[in-house]
Amino acid sequence: MSLKVGRGAEAPPFLVMDVIAAANARAASLPAGAPGILRMEVGQPGTAAPAGAVAAAMAALQSGAPLGYTEAFGLPDLRERIARHYLEHYGLRVPAARIAVTVGASGAFPLAFLAAFDRGDRVAMAAPFYPPYANILTALGMDPVLLECGPETRFQPSLAMLEKLDPLPDGLVIASPCNPAGTMLAPEELAAIAAWCHAKGVRLISDEIYHGLSWGSVAESSAAAFSESAVIVNSFSKYWCMTGWRIGWLVLPQDLVRPVECLAQNMFISAPHVAQVAARAAMDCVEELEAKKAAYARSRSRLLEGLPQAGFDRIAAADGAFYLWCDVSHLTNDSVAFAARMLEGAGIAATPGVDFDRTRGARFLRFSYCGDEAAMAEAPARLSAWLGR
Amino acid sequence: MSLKVGRGAEAPPFLVMDVIAAANARAASLPAGAPGILRMEVGQPGTAAPAGAVAAAMAALQSGAPLGYTEAFGLPDLRERIARHYLEHYGLRVPAARIAVTVGASGAFPLAFLAAFDRGDRVAMAAPFYPPYANILTALGMDPVLLECGPETRFQPSLAMLEKLDPLPDGLVIASPCNPAGTMLAPEELAAIAAWCHAKGVRLISDEIYHGLSWGSVAESSAAAFSESAVIVNSFSKYWCMTGWRIGWLVLPQDLVRPVECLAQNMFISAPHVAQVAARAAMDCVEELEAKKAAYARSRSRLLEGLPQAGFDRIAAADGAFYLWCDVSHLTNDSVAFAARMLEGAGIAATPGVDFDRTRGARFLRFSYCGDEAAMAEAPARLSAWLGR
Repeated sequence: MSLKVGRGAEAPPFLVMDVIAAANARAASLPAGAPGILRMEVGQPGTAAPAGAVAAAMAALQSGAPLGYTEAFGLPDLRERIARHYLEHYGLRVPAARIAVTVGASGAFPLAFLAAFDRGDRVAMAAPFYPPYANILTALGMDPVLLECGPETRFQPSLAMLEKLDPLPDGLVIASPCNPAGTMLAPEELAAIAAWCHAKGVRLISDEIYHGLSWGSVAESSAAAFSESAVIVNSFSKYWCMTGWRIGWLVLPQDLVRPVECLAQNMFISAPHVAQVAARAAMDCVEELEAKKAAYARSRSRLLEGLPQAGFDRIAAADGAFYLWCDVSHLTNDSVAFAARMLEGAGIAATPGVDFDRTRGARFLRFSYCGDEAAMAEAPARLSAWLGR
Repeated sequence: MSLKVGRGAEAPPFLVMDVIAAANARAASLPAGAPGILRMEVGQPGTAAPAGAVAAAMAALQSGAPLGYTEAFGLPDLRERIARHYLEHYGLRVPAARIAVTVGASGAFPLAFLAAFDRGDRVAMAAPFYPPYANILTALGMDPVLLECGPETRFQPSLAMLEKLDPLPDGLVIASPCNPAGTMLAPEELAAIAAWCHAKGVRLISDEIYHGLSWGSVAESSAAAFSESAVIVNSFSKYWCMTGWRIGWLVLPQDLVRPVECLAQNMFISAPHVAQVAARAAMDCVEELEAKKAAYARSRSRLLEGLPQAGFDRIAAADGAFYLWCDVSHLTNDSVAFAARMLEGAGIAATPGVDFDRTRGARFLRFSYCGDEAAMAEAPARLSAWLGR
């Protein structure tokens, strides 16, 4: 007989992975000597982990130590170092005992969601949003509640929106800077949302994976400053350029520490050992990382200047992360087809918005500017030529 | 107000992690020069990954390549190499397209369970069992059905037990060799169970993480040989000695390939990149790995000879893995207290059975013999002295 497949099998794909595959295929099909594809679809830095992190990993490997499982919450000295980061970067005292090292931010979300919510619980988030938030919640039997946000609130949820929700949701996921819009919540807005969530019994999950990458228009603040019930998610993937190492962390409220520890023991055992050693060292590689950040800043400036001239003139406030969220409704009403034509005609890969916004995504494109700086600089001229401007 | 905590927060701990912590504390408290603690509680090889795997990881790091996300199912050449392993080790043709590289076997289970089952579904397994099977199922809202197994079926489920189940379960998890009992299913028993599951629409999940470590009493066979609807879970942690690298794999039935890929894109993005490179190389380190295996075999022989003389004479058939599952009901009816006294009095850490068997675990202890060979050889004399034999 044919076997049953679970409802979890209905999880939608994370479409950007398919876009990456299309860009790879296009790049492979180009004749030798042809101009390459400009990769603006990927949400990962184009450079390797900082040299100090790589050196620490190599030293650990060379030592012959077994590099076995660590404690479920990670190596104590990495947890201490992350605690120090909160003090140095935010001026916050966060005890290492509330820090859980995880298998990337991806691995952190199922732990946080399972510890905080039940099946059928409603968890709100802005749209557009990072697709796995909703896809993981759905796979776990929880219900994402999408709050349609536009440029008037920097594509972020507002207190007014939250107050209108009836019934109240069980949780709220926020991200500042966010993916895909690259926008931020001002500290006073974040504080107000955090206080409201705490007062109303709504569990706040604050995705802070793009912290360290903000461009001065809005100050960077952590929900840990404003709420003792919030769950903070972070990762070494973005600022620290360690995507493929699969290493992130949670700052947990006291009531979720032991539940998340038990879940992590069962579902992960521990995060990768050598990645923990490398991450510990990465936190001291300030100079190298600030140089990478400066390159993103230069790419951002060039694109913010050049894209409007090329016809992409409706860009969300580019406060942070390394994304430009462009309203392309004057150019297309089918961003998937438009992105495919742009890949073919301009040799530029970007992500159609449908992954991030189920209702309006056909009118948006996400450009990522964390790739090679010289390549990013080429994009405006190519787009101008392709659109005939 | 105090915030709600989800039912997922009720996941029990994986207690062996607490036993490890107690053994660490005891070791740290010993005076200088005192005989050390014999570590027989840990389920991980005492030695590092094979030299070829470490060298491949170092070369990848040294190359300066970004080591970013891989495809969700892993590097194509690792998937191809695993496919070749099925041909060489089992004589089976398994297409690489059905192989998904995962974050250890731990990361494979939530993917398989979510793809195959729904909330409320009943999934059977032998007791004693590897605790995360049941704990992950429970966290995901599924119901473990425990089949009490004893020495008469080598602590493995039998077709007769399955046929008595009413209603039929939605799934069955088997492991051969298994943790904690170290016992195996004979190929004809595995074949019969796999055929029964397929015919009855019961999804078979076969945990083959201890393959490569069997001692000749029962032939090693993969469920992939007997069922096209079974899900196979495996890992580089045990035979390949790569626990802390967090790298495993699934062999998926065709109907679960795309569902698991979508879940993996959302929940993991990919397994750690450098671990994938190392795992690919590990598969060619046959000589070194067979030498490690020979050391386990010698430790096993010494313990099977020495433990009965020390008073531990009721040991499950030690067919595979690196565990001895001892019935200690003639010595205690509280294995937790007994293990604590043994740590104190004999300086030997072992895992009380309560983690593995909720009803009978107070009468069982698990000894792991994958640690340092010289340490393992000391255990019988220490136990004899402690028990006054």
